Amino acid sequence: MVIQVSVCGPRDCTSEDESNAREVGRLLAERGAVVICGGYTGVMAAVAAGARSAGGTVVGILSRADRQDANPDLSIVIPTGVGEARNGIIVNSADAVIVIGGSWGTLSELALAMRRGLTPVVQLGGWRILDRDGRPLPGVEHASTPEEALARTGLWPGR
Amino acid sequence: MVIQVSVCGPRDCTSEDESNAREVGRLLAERGAVVICGGYTGVMAAVAAGARSAGGTVVGILSRADRQDANPDLSIVIPTGVGEARNGIIVNSADAVIVIGGSWGTLSELALAMRRGLTPVVQLGGWRILDRDGRPLPGVEHASTPEEALARTGLWPGR
Amino acid sequence: MVIQVSVCGPRDCTSEDESNAREVGRLLAERGAVVICGGYTGVMAAVAAGARSAGGTVVGILSRADRQDANPDLSIVIPTGVGEARNGIIVNSADAVIVIGGSWGTLSELALAMRRGLTPVVQLGGWRILDRDGRPLPGVEHASTPEEALARTGLWPGR
Amino acid sequence: MVIQVSVCGPRDCTSEDESNAREVGRLLAERGAVVICGGYTGVMAAVAAGARSAGGTVVGILSRADRQDANPDLSIVIPTGVGEARNGIIVNSADAVIVIGGSWGTLSELALAMRRGLTPVVQLGGWRILDRDGRPLPGVEHASTPEEALARTGLWPGR
Repeated sequence: MVIQVSVCGPRDCTSEDESNAREVGRLLAERGAVVICGGYTGVMAAVAAGARSAGGTVVGILSRADRQDANPDLSIVIPTGVGEARNGIIVNSADAVIVIGGSWGTLSELALAMRRGLTPVVQLGGWRILDRDGRPLPGVEHASTPEEALARTGLWPGR
Repeated sequence: MVIQVSVCGPRDCTSEDESNAREVGRLLAERGAVVICGGYTGVMAAVAAGARSAGGTVVGILSRADRQDANPDLSIVIPTGVGEARNGIIVNSADAVIVIGGSWGTLSELALAMRRGLTPVVQLGGWRILDRDGRPLPGVEHASTPEEALARTGLWPGR
Repeated sequence: MVIQVSVCGPRDCTSEDESNAREVGRLLAERGAVVICGGYTGVMAAVAAGARSAGGTVVGILSRADRQDANPDLSIVIPTGVGEARNGIIVNSADAVIVIGGSWGTLSELALAMRRGLTPVVQLGGWRILDRDGRPLPGVEHASTPEEALARTGLWPGR
Repeated sequence: MVIQVSVCGPRDCTSEDESNAREVGRLLAERGAVVICGGYTGVMAAVAAGARSAGGTVVGILSRADRQDANPDLSIVIPTGVGEARNGIIVNSADAVIVIGGSWGTLSELALAMRRGLTPVVQLGGWRILDRDGRPLPGVEHASTPEEALARTGLWPGR
């Protein structure tokens, strides 16, 4: 079965997040991975645009029950109608999760991915989570470039 | 955007349902539609096999949070983890819903599709619903062959 | 633990459905059962009003993520934000399901309750479901009065 | 309508979290608030026990579709069957959210509550979230005692 990578990030993102997301999308498509995202604007639109520019397949898992506001670069649209509960569906669909930038919705996806504990979770920019003693939580991989983000998923070991 | 058709039906289906599902899957793939289904066995497996035999794309929207028991003909797997609530997601993702055969789970999908009221719903075999006066409920299209099922969706008017 | 009974029915119901729902709510409250419903208007409002008139507790499981349009007789409000997926939550929360009247949303609840197969499902009025040979599906109990609906749940055998 | 306060926290919690949760439950019940929680063990069990000790009402919003592992102090049990998507339902049901202790599941609830942005969110112990410049995110209230946690919800201004 084809590799599926979920890319999470805010609607309102920085221009650096946007450019990182576009590049992550392009690189994933080049490696033949299906990109899964939330299907709206910001990081979601950028990763979709990047993947489509390289001929990739992008699945948008929408919170709404219809296609309103879905971005035009999605190959397949899943209007769940379950609101923010779609965040967990994005995460459950992934062989690896790449988180770009920070927002409360994005943090819920990162947390659900770590809660699930089955697949690599890589952060590229964004927020930091500390335990009650002020130490970084173990388990989240950190990357500083799109290339490194893909490498840290461990899905393409030969490269 | 590509046309998405959801095909619903029971795990435990008749051999006629299975052969209808396989043919519906094949015909949908030939017309370039993405097939969406529940991703497990019975009608779901048959429609996936039919679509794949014609080179089509099949999305499985699973009730489980992981890929256990997912059928091997799925192109893309969405393990929702929301249980039977995934039935509504299958329906919301459709430009048309084709229902093959009968079971309580299948009936919930038919009912949610009619409740939504946005897309054609076509039944091929299966159960019948009567109002309190014993009359068939209006709105559901009935077909007696896979070809007729596709025709009654109204999605390919030129054919 | 207290007995929980879910009562399902349409927003747009007949006056007979409404009066049945009110009486079912009252009887359930008198027996000390918590009433669970969809929390909006029609049958949902009537069963809530009936239960509250007898001092009962009513939980409204809303489709929306906020309390907008919730009916005022609810004791506890659960705005799920998962849309029609809340229908399955109503059903899963029940020691018995009583269905009053008919609509596509109501039928989805009846179907999900039968799919679950764990608790009695009683219909008071409403639609009829036939198998492919035109025979009524076994398993659903039918009642013609509110008193009989409660009796057919089997939850109060001593009465 | 009665005030509903959701209390979130890990299954595996510290003894301090547990004692804080028990006290928060007791205080909420004394003020007449309905306590909403995840319904299992750890912080969820402690807040339920505390609330019940003061005669309060506790609603458990379970991830499972049945009552297995539900803790015995729940007044009302909602087995959603939607898995971790129940976290958002807990949050949507709240007039205020109190988060006790830290875990990835708990963090997802805190994040969803902040994402929603409609109600106060108070942390008592647990993890810290920093933005990309290492600064604490604004909006989350911090308390160091159960009494202070209730005060910071702002729901009982007269006290």
